[in-house]
Amino acid sequence: MSIITLTTDYGLKDHFVGSLKGKILKEFAEAQIIDISHDIDPFNTAQASYIVGAAYNSFPKGTVHLIGIDAEYNKENRHIAMEWDGHYFVCADNGILGMLTQKIVPQKMAEINIHDRLPADATDLDVFVTVACHIARGGQLNVIGKDIQSMKQVTELKPVALADSIRGYVIYIDHFGNVVTNISRQLFVETAKGRPYEIVLNDKRGRNHIRTIWPKYSDIAVSDKFPIKDYEGQRLAIFNEAGFLEIAIFRSNPNTVGSAETLLGLGYRDMITINFDVQP
Amino acid sequence: MSIITLTTDYGLKDHFVGSLKGKILKEFAEAQIIDISHDIDPFNTAQASYIVGAAYNSFPKGTVHLIGIDAEYNKENRHIAMEWDGHYFVCADNGILGMLTQKIVPQKMAEINIHDRLPADATDLDVFVTVACHIARGGQLNVIGKDIQSMKQVTELKPVALADSIRGYVIYIDHFGNVVTNISRQLFVETAKGRPYEIVLNDKRGRNHIRTIWPKYSDIAVSDKFPIKDYEGQRLAIFNEAGFLEIAIFRSNPNTVGSAETLLGLGYRDMITINFDVQP
Amino acid sequence: MSIITLTTDYGLKDHFVGSLKGKILKEFAEAQIIDISHDIDPFNTAQASYIVGAAYNSFPKGTVHLIGIDAEYNKENRHIAMEWDGHYFVCADNGILGMLTQKIVPQKMAEINIHDRLPADATDLDVFVTVACHIARGGQLNVIGKDIQSMKQVTELKPVALADSIRGYVIYIDHFGNVVTNISRQLFVETAKGRPYEIVLNDKRGRNHIRTIWPKYSDIAVSDKFPIKDYEGQRLAIFNEAGFLEIAIFRSNPNTVGSAETLLGLGYRDMITINFDVQP
Repeated sequence: MSIITLTTDYGLKDHFVGSLKGKILKEFAEAQIIDISHDIDPFNTAQASYIVGAAYNSFPKGTVHLIGIDAEYNKENRHIAMEWDGHYFVCADNGILGMLTQKIVPQKMAEINIHDRLPADATDLDVFVTVACHIARGGQLNVIGKDIQSMKQVTELKPVALADSIRGYVIYIDHFGNVVTNISRQLFVETAKGRPYEIVLNDKRGRNHIRTIWPKYSDIAVSDKFPIKDYEGQRLAIFNEAGFLEIAIFRSNPNTVGSAETLLGLGYRDMITINFDVQP
Repeated sequence: MSIITLTTDYGLKDHFVGSLKGKILKEFAEAQIIDISHDIDPFNTAQASYIVGAAYNSFPKGTVHLIGIDAEYNKENRHIAMEWDGHYFVCADNGILGMLTQKIVPQKMAEINIHDRLPADATDLDVFVTVACHIARGGQLNVIGKDIQSMKQVTELKPVALADSIRGYVIYIDHFGNVVTNISRQLFVETAKGRPYEIVLNDKRGRNHIRTIWPKYSDIAVSDKFPIKDYEGQRLAIFNEAGFLEIAIFRSNPNTVGSAETLLGLGYRDMITINFDVQP
Repeated sequence: MSIITLTTDYGLKDHFVGSLKGKILKEFAEAQIIDISHDIDPFNTAQASYIVGAAYNSFPKGTVHLIGIDAEYNKENRHIAMEWDGHYFVCADNGILGMLTQKIVPQKMAEINIHDRLPADATDLDVFVTVACHIARGGQLNVIGKDIQSMKQVTELKPVALADSIRGYVIYIDHFGNVVTNISRQLFVETAKGRPYEIVLNDKRGRNHIRTIWPKYSDIAVSDKFPIKDYEGQRLAIFNEAGFLEIAIFRSNPNTVGSAETLLGLGYRDMITINFDVQP
């Protein structure tokens, strides 16, 4: 019950992340602080949502996830805390938690109301630190806020499943330039029902089809006759470790040979379609 | 008494920061090591000075702050340790601590003289590690150095307060492209004496005036008639969490829409003037 | 015995490193996790080899070094663990450990064979985490793998020592743009036998000679008549803290004035020659 993770858009150049950790240790010296990412694109709550959703499950139950994105407290942006799937989340009510709550109903949600109890010069992050440390020490949500029944939902592009196709969108591009869509393995399996399929990349350089989703990257090396190296640069699809359809270039390097993002011309919010019952 | 913070210009690509932490843990396994920043511009002691000054107070008293910037020991650059405001600092005598000591007189200053007691191949960082761990374990400064009465001062551009104006300079540009000046809230309040004011940005695209310093970023959204989103991209001034006047673009993103640095054309060492008794 | 270091090409933007740490803490809550680097160039095992070789010795004996580079388990890429010089290494058998084992013979090598004992959806990193935590807790290598007698060797460009010269290659360019070669101090001393020498940089802007290897950077400031600052921008050679010949620009800054890499036009795999018995 003493891990606190951090996800922010603060970057690592300034002192902000260091200060945040200092404040946590001042309040709760036993906290074990783990960075998830501080390179979220500024104010990009959709990106933060994906990252936190992909990471949380690697941590033990009881972990407190502090999310410092678009966290300024104002008339449109209250502060909230949520207990969900055995984990705790402290952030602003700006839709960041929507991707989680679509999947599993929260155990408890609270609107943080301790602002008046803190010093006058307390920052938004001071509020989050106080709440996160309270929870990490085993404290109850109702001590730091009042129960709420709903949170702000973000109307992000959602995948659409029809009888013979799924239409999804690019939601994230990772460090390797791999392109992550919002088509989950579960949605695919339920819609596919074992039928053949083709993935249509609506990229800017014409239509590209992919007809296989591999269990892992190097499975693209189908023939024993060639070394795996010979497959470098080929495009492929997998369900990534977060459970989402990912379009990748085998052993891509954005610094040199290029990546799915650059080579296939795919960008954030671009559409990806999977058609079923196609001719093999 | 066991937190050691690190501020360096080593970057995160190489093994230097990892090695530094390994050496600390070898010497003092109980140390809790927190990164403040490793992305200080190489050899930029002014930047390091601002970052350490902005961060230190987030940590508990007794914290040891190790600063690895321009740390090579030579005839012009001795190694020092300082006790100041209940915190400890270990660094080279290159002016880095000037921004702190201008505000509060040090409790104790020492010139480190343990170099001869270390192995012949000990690096400058090995010296700092030995000293920092000694202090973190509760050791006295006079065991690792001899008392000194002064340190090197840096003749950085300092703010100038006249009867009707303050002239300051840009000292730092943060991850969001916000522009931090060396005009402190205290200097402003003492000089303003409640008079109206205008901030003149001597930028390269003509003179721009700002007539309000807000308590927080989103206070720029003055009207309840419009959502806060409508104010995105507007320029504003606040006193930042370190107590310095900051010029920002509301919800800027250097990667996309631009920032105060790019949009207002403000750079390191540029002049900012505040005029008082102006016509409202 | 409870430090686990991490060296990967995952970058810090995504959640991968955070997830990796979460998984380690889930398995072994007492682990002390230290980042060596996550900015290894994607799939660049030679770079990882240099970084791990330069860093490991800063850590106490018994440290477990987890290396997540090109780690996908497949027919060509088995997973291995090694005990070497009192340290432990967990990685793929892709040549990463060659730079270490050329110097000292491993105490024990094992091919990891626990894959079948893990859940079906376990990733390559889950395998490494399980093994690293097992070792960090004091477990034996033969519990997680079977003894092997050799590992894959990489035919990287190796330095060649003749009677009157050494030919080496650029193996790494650091954060400061300093150029690291694979010519070790030991090879230099054994070949030089005290003779005068000149270092020939086969750069693209003509031949440049350097006739002194300094003990430390600021030793280039040979005259007491001038301040050290006057030597900024001069090129120099030293043996770096990892024991390899490094070509540097004194107080370079890749962001502003340039570095050895940019100013001397030296790149990865470029040749450097040292000639002996030259006219002084």
